[in-house]
Amino acid sequence: MDTISLVHGEGGKHTQQLIKELFYKEFSNDNLLKDKDAAVLSLETQSIAFTTDSFVVNPLFFPGGDIGRLCISGTVNDLVTSFSIPKYISLSLIIEEGFSFKALKEIVASIKKTSEEAGVTIVTGDTKVVEKDKVDGVFINTSGIGIIAHSLKDIIKSGDKIIITSNIAEHGTAIASSRYGLEVIGDIKSDVAPLNDLISVLWDYREYIRLLKDPTRGGVAQCFNEIASKYSVGLNILEYKIPIRKEVKALNGIIGLDPYYLASEGVMVLIADGPMAIDIVQQLNKDEKYKNAAIIGEVTEGHKKVVLENSHGGKHVLRELEGVMLPRIC
Amino acid sequence: MDTISLVHGEGGKHTQQLIKELFYKEFSNDNLLKDKDAAVLSLETQSIAFTTDSFVVNPLFFPGGDIGRLCISGTVNDLVTSFSIPKYISLSLIIEEGFSFKALKEIVASIKKTSEEAGVTIVTGDTKVVEKDKVDGVFINTSGIGIIAHSLKDIIKSGDKIIITSNIAEHGTAIASSRYGLEVIGDIKSDVAPLNDLISVLWDYREYIRLLKDPTRGGVAQCFNEIASKYSVGLNILEYKIPIRKEVKALNGIIGLDPYYLASEGVMVLIADGPMAIDIVQQLNKDEKYKNAAIIGEVTEGHKKVVLENSHGGKHVLRELEGVMLPRIC
Repeated sequence: MDTISLVHGEGGKHTQQLIKELFYKEFSNDNLLKDKDAAVLSLETQSIAFTTDSFVVNPLFFPGGDIGRLCISGTVNDLVTSFSIPKYISLSLIIEEGFSFKALKEIVASIKKTSEEAGVTIVTGDTKVVEKDKVDGVFINTSGIGIIAHSLKDIIKSGDKIIITSNIAEHGTAIASSRYGLEVIGDIKSDVAPLNDLISVLWDYREYIRLLKDPTRGGVAQCFNEIASKYSVGLNILEYKIPIRKEVKALNGIIGLDPYYLASEGVMVLIADGPMAIDIVQQLNKDEKYKNAAIIGEVTEGHKKVVLENSHGGKHVLRELEGVMLPRIC
Repeated sequence: MDTISLVHGEGGKHTQQLIKELFYKEFSNDNLLKDKDAAVLSLETQSIAFTTDSFVVNPLFFPGGDIGRLCISGTVNDLVTSFSIPKYISLSLIIEEGFSFKALKEIVASIKKTSEEAGVTIVTGDTKVVEKDKVDGVFINTSGIGIIAHSLKDIIKSGDKIIITSNIAEHGTAIASSRYGLEVIGDIKSDVAPLNDLISVLWDYREYIRLLKDPTRGGVAQCFNEIASKYSVGLNILEYKIPIRKEVKALNGIIGLDPYYLASEGVMVLIADGPMAIDIVQQLNKDEKYKNAAIIGEVTEGHKKVVLENSHGGKHVLRELEGVMLPRIC
């Protein structure tokens, strides 16, 4: 079998074969192997986080990752935003007739590897196949359940600090470089990664963390604006404190994209208690993965505005994303 | 706004508007309105069912239903198969650029109506938009969480009876009639419906029910074969006991499809304790919705085969689905 055909989506013999020989083999675990229409799970608590994401990224394989790594990381990171330990993942694929079986196997292997890295298991799934040209390659939905480890207070106040865990805009820039055929310029690759380890890294400081949010679609600009709007606060961001690699800046200069609007897939924005923010950043910096974590600004009274301040004290408003930037980055 | 454009999928201002003005308005509930990347849920138990399904049905609107009613019913019914009370649904849409906003509103209204009927709430979601011709209209993923009401024993033995709750093949036939432009022949419409009420209807008999399975893709033929294969039993089915409407038979005769392989979306197959099966059917029959429920056969020692017996005692093997029958029925 070289390619996926409609018969793999009919629910009959060939669907069963595909499920058993590819998915069950790779994702083998007690829940999945029970071969039920729904997984039955025994949780450790009654308090859970639940999230969903569909991935339509183009191209499917990009510098630093692929749709498989992305679909696990994206859902895991959404679970981490509610300070939960990601546990169970559902996996649903919509595949185009004629799709390469080799590519599908690579994606599935990447899903397996990233799941292991993130400590999650795939407990239920679904596979559909649609006619050629009715879907672009493969789209994947992952939904996830996490165990709430600690209840965040969900209150933000003036004087709270804004922390970012790593360099921004790496994922969006990698997609753009791939889309525009510019992979050769600099060392550009996606940061896509599961951030479940943040729960343990930040554990001792959990009482001082107000909020976590991952700056994916729309980048940090959209992330900051959503926080400002939802909590009716201002955000004052020190532009020169935002960690961003010069290669990323340069490539965006060439193609004319603003990195503040480009997605990260392995970065978290934290809002933390003002006096404890330095300790939190020091704790993050101990970890190689978060060595560039920094305080980049603070919450102000303001009026739902995000203000960007440069090193000369010049200020301007950073607006939410309005137009089409770079479709299908995730 | 008449149509959906790429900007609605960028994650910026227009995505936020679409989410708030359409989804939040229709699906308003405390969890959803918290506007988080993951819903935080307090469950009544630590024992849950978790399932996922992507819906790629063509056409989106068909006699008796639409993709909105289907995407809720399908996931609700998968939760019911593990005797759980469906509670929380995640909703993820992949929409084609240029898709009619009016059609999207109709689908969302149908999702809302069916969710209310099923007693589930939509607590988290995702919206993606892809370029024209990169997806066919709209594909929807729903994942669901149910509260396990009773643990099924999951043991099937010779002498157990096979019960079906309603007329078969109605959904597949409705899709076929629509696909072939035969809507005018007879009263053909999909049976798509959430079956969460089965948990209470069957509650007093829960100890006597071994298994529930919904005969969707691949119809009853696939459903029976999967049971036979998984539990290493034979299934002897009395063909003349299977409830099927004569209009459904007639239309399938015209288009040359075998109704045993056509999907139902509002039917459940039960395997029940032999001596209690009549009582269970009588209990089901009290409900107008299940007035055609019947015992249609029994579990035999056999060797993973499904045998169809006609009214003259003639027997033949009912095989699992091998070829392409009718793509994209769900």
